[in-house]
Amino acid sequence: MTEQDVQAQSLRRTAYRLADVARRISLEYFRNPALVADNKAVGGFDPVTQADRACELAMREVLAADRPDDAIEGEEFGPKSGTSGLRWVLDPIDGTRGFLSGTPTWGVLIAVCDDTGPIFGVIDQPYIGERFEGGFGGARLSRGAVETPLRTRNTQNLADAILFSTFPEVGTKDEGAAFATVARAVKLTRYGMDCYAYGLMALGQIDLVIEAGLQPYDVLAPIAVVEAAGGIVTDWQGRPAHGGGRVLAAANPAIHTQALAMLSTCPEAAA
Amino acid sequence: MTEQDVQAQSLRRTAYRLADVARRISLEYFRNPALVADNKAVGGFDPVTQADRACELAMREVLAADRPDDAIEGEEFGPKSGTSGLRWVLDPIDGTRGFLSGTPTWGVLIAVCDDTGPIFGVIDQPYIGERFEGGFGGARLSRGAVETPLRTRNTQNLADAILFSTFPEVGTKDEGAAFATVARAVKLTRYGMDCYAYGLMALGQIDLVIEAGLQPYDVLAPIAVVEAAGGIVTDWQGRPAHGGGRVLAAANPAIHTQALAMLSTCPEAAA
Repeated sequence: MTEQDVQAQSLRRTAYRLADVARRISLEYFRNPALVADNKAVGGFDPVTQADRACELAMREVLAADRPDDAIEGEEFGPKSGTSGLRWVLDPIDGTRGFLSGTPTWGVLIAVCDDTGPIFGVIDQPYIGERFEGGFGGARLSRGAVETPLRTRNTQNLADAILFSTFPEVGTKDEGAAFATVARAVKLTRYGMDCYAYGLMALGQIDLVIEAGLQPYDVLAPIAVVEAAGGIVTDWQGRPAHGGGRVLAAANPAIHTQALAMLSTCPEAAA
Repeated sequence: MTEQDVQAQSLRRTAYRLADVARRISLEYFRNPALVADNKAVGGFDPVTQADRACELAMREVLAADRPDDAIEGEEFGPKSGTSGLRWVLDPIDGTRGFLSGTPTWGVLIAVCDDTGPIFGVIDQPYIGERFEGGFGGARLSRGAVETPLRTRNTQNLADAILFSTFPEVGTKDEGAAFATVARAVKLTRYGMDCYAYGLMALGQIDLVIEAGLQPYDVLAPIAVVEAAGGIVTDWQGRPAHGGGRVLAAANPAIHTQALAMLSTCPEAAA
């Protein structure tokens, strides 16, 4: 094994430990009547739950033991700096609204990043027991002992495409209008899946995910998984989407080009 | 055991056999790249799949063996008359669009009806392995060996409620406007779950499901499950919803009354 292989194996092992601990803790809270949701947003509904915080704390403990020199960026707590050049980006429960509604379509998001962006990512769905992963030259879905290679599909025309987004109210008015243009052009538009939609794209089930207003921790793990499976993830101008914001994930270059042509006319958000 | 208990046990056993065979067949097709979707609707996208048809045929074979004197009404094939006064209503795959997208939120719907309506119903989600059932004095969710009693929750105010519907485009223009009135009044509105939303209501996770344009086979099994768990299912005038059409399912009388007040002003559809 090369030194690179050794590091990849070590990072993958840590990512699994993070996903395992988050799976155990999140399932203690999922569909538990004692779950309490606070309201993080003023004038909105942005639930933060005990589950989010408990998961992220436990994940940070794993990293403190396994990877003390790496930086950490999580949704619920402040950033931790590091010296290794590697950064772990954690969203302990992506899709908290779905979690609070009992739907099994939320996920634990884990990304390992270097200066170039995410090099390995995991989308874990604890209740179904599915783990989508991508990076270090591979992409697979594991469920119990069953492993399935991830490979995006080859739909060539937008008119045959299946599009997902989390809510029908996508972003600002301009962003919603741009999204609607693509939604009118595709065969089928579905909502309500959060990060699970990126897993479905990597698995070759759907063709497009379009969202706006994302945070880096919402998108870095999905980028790693989708790109390792052959897909393309950019912002609405075709640039890297590592910073979050407006995201266009596509199963292949043909579909990406067609959707990008519609989204790229959306005015840039005011700074 | 009384004669009624014996019949209940026999009907429940047949319902399980139907759900088991549909589970096996639907999973052969789910996420299978060879799945072919025809287009049933002219000018729309209403996929009928080989999986729907294969499931319903196999379910009809079970009924021919177990319950030859009962009537059958299924989504994919013509009605079969009976002499027993009992009628099986089958939707082999409710949520075909979700099925075709790889989401694990479609379901197999099985209802047994007498002259009064559904007396027992099953909502089965084969991929997750969840079976919601209600009737004959009980309501439970089974997953493998784990059984959970079903009980709707006690949210008293619409402002605290979680509302589900399958698509944001609910029914006609009038129906969509009435739905939007309720959606604006609740805490959270989510989409994309098909029949699984009724299971979540029975499990005490959500408070309202509002839909329009349903068929009887879409709603009879959900009615049995939700009502056995303590919920209420009516049309938008508070009448029985056994015939499909506009459906309002609520976790309890308080929430039902508040949502009904908003929906009941929706003009009746033209005959």
